[in-house]
Amino acid sequence: MSKGVTAKSEDYGRWYTDVITKAQLADYGPVKGTMVIRPYGFSLWESVKSAFDNRFKATGHVNAYFPLFIPKSFLSKEAEHVAGFAKECAVVTHHRLMANPDGDGLVVDPESALEEEVVVRPTSETVIWAMYKKWIQSYRDLPLLINQWVNVVRWEMRTRLFLRTTEFLWQEGHTAHATAEEAEEEAKKILEIYREVAEDVMAIPVFTGLKTDAEKFAGAERTYCIEAMMGDKRALQAGTSHNLGQNFAKAFGVTYQTEDNREEYVYATSWGVSTRLVGAVIMTHGDDKGLRLPPKIAPHQVVIVPISRTDEDKQNIRQFIEPILNEFKEKKIRFHQDWGPNSPGFKFNEWEMKGVPLRLEVGPRDVEENQVMLVRRDTGDKTAIPKDTITTRVENLLHEIQDNLFQQALKFRKENTCTVKSFDKFKSIIENNGGFVQCGWDGDAKTELKIKEETKATIRCILPDGDISGKTCVYSGNPAKYEVIFAKAY
Amino acid sequence: MSKGVTAKSEDYGRWYTDVITKAQLADYGPVKGTMVIRPYGFSLWESVKSAFDNRFKATGHVNAYFPLFIPKSFLSKEAEHVAGFAKECAVVTHHRLMANPDGDGLVVDPESALEEEVVVRPTSETVIWAMYKKWIQSYRDLPLLINQWVNVVRWEMRTRLFLRTTEFLWQEGHTAHATAEEAEEEAKKILEIYREVAEDVMAIPVFTGLKTDAEKFAGAERTYCIEAMMGDKRALQAGTSHNLGQNFAKAFGVTYQTEDNREEYVYATSWGVSTRLVGAVIMTHGDDKGLRLPPKIAPHQVVIVPISRTDEDKQNIRQFIEPILNEFKEKKIRFHQDWGPNSPGFKFNEWEMKGVPLRLEVGPRDVEENQVMLVRRDTGDKTAIPKDTITTRVENLLHEIQDNLFQQALKFRKENTCTVKSFDKFKSIIENNGGFVQCGWDGDAKTELKIKEETKATIRCILPDGDISGKTCVYSGNPAKYEVIFAKAY
Repeated sequence: MSKGVTAKSEDYGRWYTDVITKAQLADYGPVKGTMVIRPYGFSLWESVKSAFDNRFKATGHVNAYFPLFIPKSFLSKEAEHVAGFAKECAVVTHHRLMANPDGDGLVVDPESALEEEVVVRPTSETVIWAMYKKWIQSYRDLPLLINQWVNVVRWEMRTRLFLRTTEFLWQEGHTAHATAEEAEEEAKKILEIYREVAEDVMAIPVFTGLKTDAEKFAGAERTYCIEAMMGDKRALQAGTSHNLGQNFAKAFGVTYQTEDNREEYVYATSWGVSTRLVGAVIMTHGDDKGLRLPPKIAPHQVVIVPISRTDEDKQNIRQFIEPILNEFKEKKIRFHQDWGPNSPGFKFNEWEMKGVPLRLEVGPRDVEENQVMLVRRDTGDKTAIPKDTITTRVENLLHEIQDNLFQQALKFRKENTCTVKSFDKFKSIIENNGGFVQCGWDGDAKTELKIKEETKATIRCILPDGDISGKTCVYSGNPAKYEVIFAKAY
Repeated sequence: MSKGVTAKSEDYGRWYTDVITKAQLADYGPVKGTMVIRPYGFSLWESVKSAFDNRFKATGHVNAYFPLFIPKSFLSKEAEHVAGFAKECAVVTHHRLMANPDGDGLVVDPESALEEEVVVRPTSETVIWAMYKKWIQSYRDLPLLINQWVNVVRWEMRTRLFLRTTEFLWQEGHTAHATAEEAEEEAKKILEIYREVAEDVMAIPVFTGLKTDAEKFAGAERTYCIEAMMGDKRALQAGTSHNLGQNFAKAFGVTYQTEDNREEYVYATSWGVSTRLVGAVIMTHGDDKGLRLPPKIAPHQVVIVPISRTDEDKQNIRQFIEPILNEFKEKKIRFHQDWGPNSPGFKFNEWEMKGVPLRLEVGPRDVEENQVMLVRRDTGDKTAIPKDTITTRVENLLHEIQDNLFQQALKFRKENTCTVKSFDKFKSIIENNGGFVQCGWDGDAKTELKIKEETKATIRCILPDGDISGKTCVYSGNPAKYEVIFAKAY
């Protein structure tokens, strides 16, 4: 903990990994591509999770649990879906190990081969729609608004902690509706929840909009997304909400009886956010001293660092801060006291690395003067605060820090989002400055592919309120059909 | 929902499955032995989970997440552990599917074989101790008190919803300590949390004690457990807390530097409870009308059934109950309103099946008389309650029901626990009445095995405060070393 991290400007990738390691957010698991989420990182995920979960429940969704294992045959039921996931599936083929007859250790018992291999879920549409077929008969069973918080596996070759790991944690919502309109409304409602939590809770500004056909979910009619700009100006897809139309209902034969006794296929949505969001927090707010956490999700909002030489100092400080801590508890301010053996300087570095929004220092002189020192992690500002105003001050500062982190990220995104008309300018920005390029697109998948091949930039989203009047496609020069955001992405 | 369940007395196993199906707690998954936990069942699990999680956190434990996949070789590092788990492991051998070259569907791509097969965790000691080796250097890193809430897989041949499924959800705590005493204290502290949640939250009386060597966890020095009696008088192991000694530390080479600079192996515990507890709730409290839920874990503590013929009735009732519902919200009483199209009788049956502790009926006449009808699920008692006292009354009744369910279960257990001295009596009880037998045991594993072979009863736990003065072993007649509980178990 004593040494710092690689500077962002020097090597962004190493900076990112350094922060994760030194703030003890995560570690590599023993199987390649897997991740251990350490307690501090997990606590962050628990905060994010509960922000979403509360909103899902408030809008009528309920949680459930569907099995990890999916019969291999299910994956091939929806044509696009299989193409999207079959190539990166962990496959369970046997159910027993045995002592190695030819030497040490264990081998797979060949007699334990499964009749049909099972796949570890990469996502659960197929198993869920197999169940919905049993559960849905009539319009009275609709809408069905189910979510689950689970682990999923996609066998990735190039992995990166939080952003792309073989196994990750996520929520996946799967809803069934009587009409196309209701499904569309649901997909948009969830998108708005995603935007709200990203911006108002995690302090990450996002663009919301539609994915192009090339970028949408395998099996969806329409994919909505939230897209954020990371500290290296790359885009991160932070959440997706899919209108699946009747694709899965048809693949699994899920119909319902309408009020007027017709038999109709059900309409569906699915939507998810994952532990990738922890990566987004790090990359949006982190600096060369480490993490900077938005107060709303910080495991500790205030860290108390007592500065004491003698046992008597310690006792005086403990007495002095006791009423403050009681007030914190009452106001539900999450705090942590660091009475450990390390030096104050070491502790300052450690808690800065861990991104705690406020540091409260208190030494014998502060006790005498009936005050404490408050230090903001976002700005470094240090102020002496009289004891009797401390709780109000902390509450206000936590709001300010939350807001400031959002405003800083928004400013950074604005500074690195250019509207362009020519492809030369487009290329020059993507190659030199990086960041987001806002421009017209003719809606042709070929154009999109050409641009990707030439620049590695992809369409992150089609802007919902894009203005195309008089605009042309940045590549083809044809009339623009959409206004879009291009960027290189994680 | 209109039809009832098989009577408990007629076929206990079918009664159990009927309740789960009709109360919509769970369903079978498509892969044999897997389970879907439906929203109502999952909500129950969420209540149980948060009761434990709050207590773990209050005693200094933190949550984390370790990977699903474990290298095959890890499993063989601890000798007893491998024997305990290798025979029921799901093994991932490949990471890709491909279109079947000889026909329809998908087949495993033979070129995607893994270099080393990975096992889906049956429990996480091995992967966690591999990480602890990296994280633990000095006494300052101890104790390490980590828990995780995850899915685990044990390939079971005979499965039963909630009680024994190929995949289940659980928490597993894994702690590391500097001394043997601390580890022992931890194992006992957790046992007490398990007892408290079982008895005070789930209203399930439990015996606590040690497992015998034959019944303990594969790799533990000592296994503590909570054991409950189900409605068919069989025992259910409801939670276990293991003192692992230095077994895993030695297997994974985890040492720490003591305060006086010696190198020592770390001491460990692990402990877990699972979705099996939902099965315990059903089997402890359920009756021939379905579930009966302890108020502390009931998803809905009160269900409101309006009895109305006309729209005007409905409107009057809505107006009438609005202030009541506001009071419920304020007092955090969890309620559900059933305004659905079904008849009142249908609704009564449905919510009785789902075990909601209190039903609040209100019709036009009640509105006139400024009262509601309250019906207890545990006793069936129905009382008219004046509107202005309703909230207090509901709060009191919820406490009474919680207590009554516990007392009923305790009485049932007492009635079906016999202290015996002779093996004839022992056999006769196990064969005829069933239930728990309390008796002396000589501590010999051979005696234990003989009894199991002759009666199928096993030692559920060694009583911690057992009185053996002058007692003899129920089988061998030798002096008793322990007082134990024998029973047939799930």
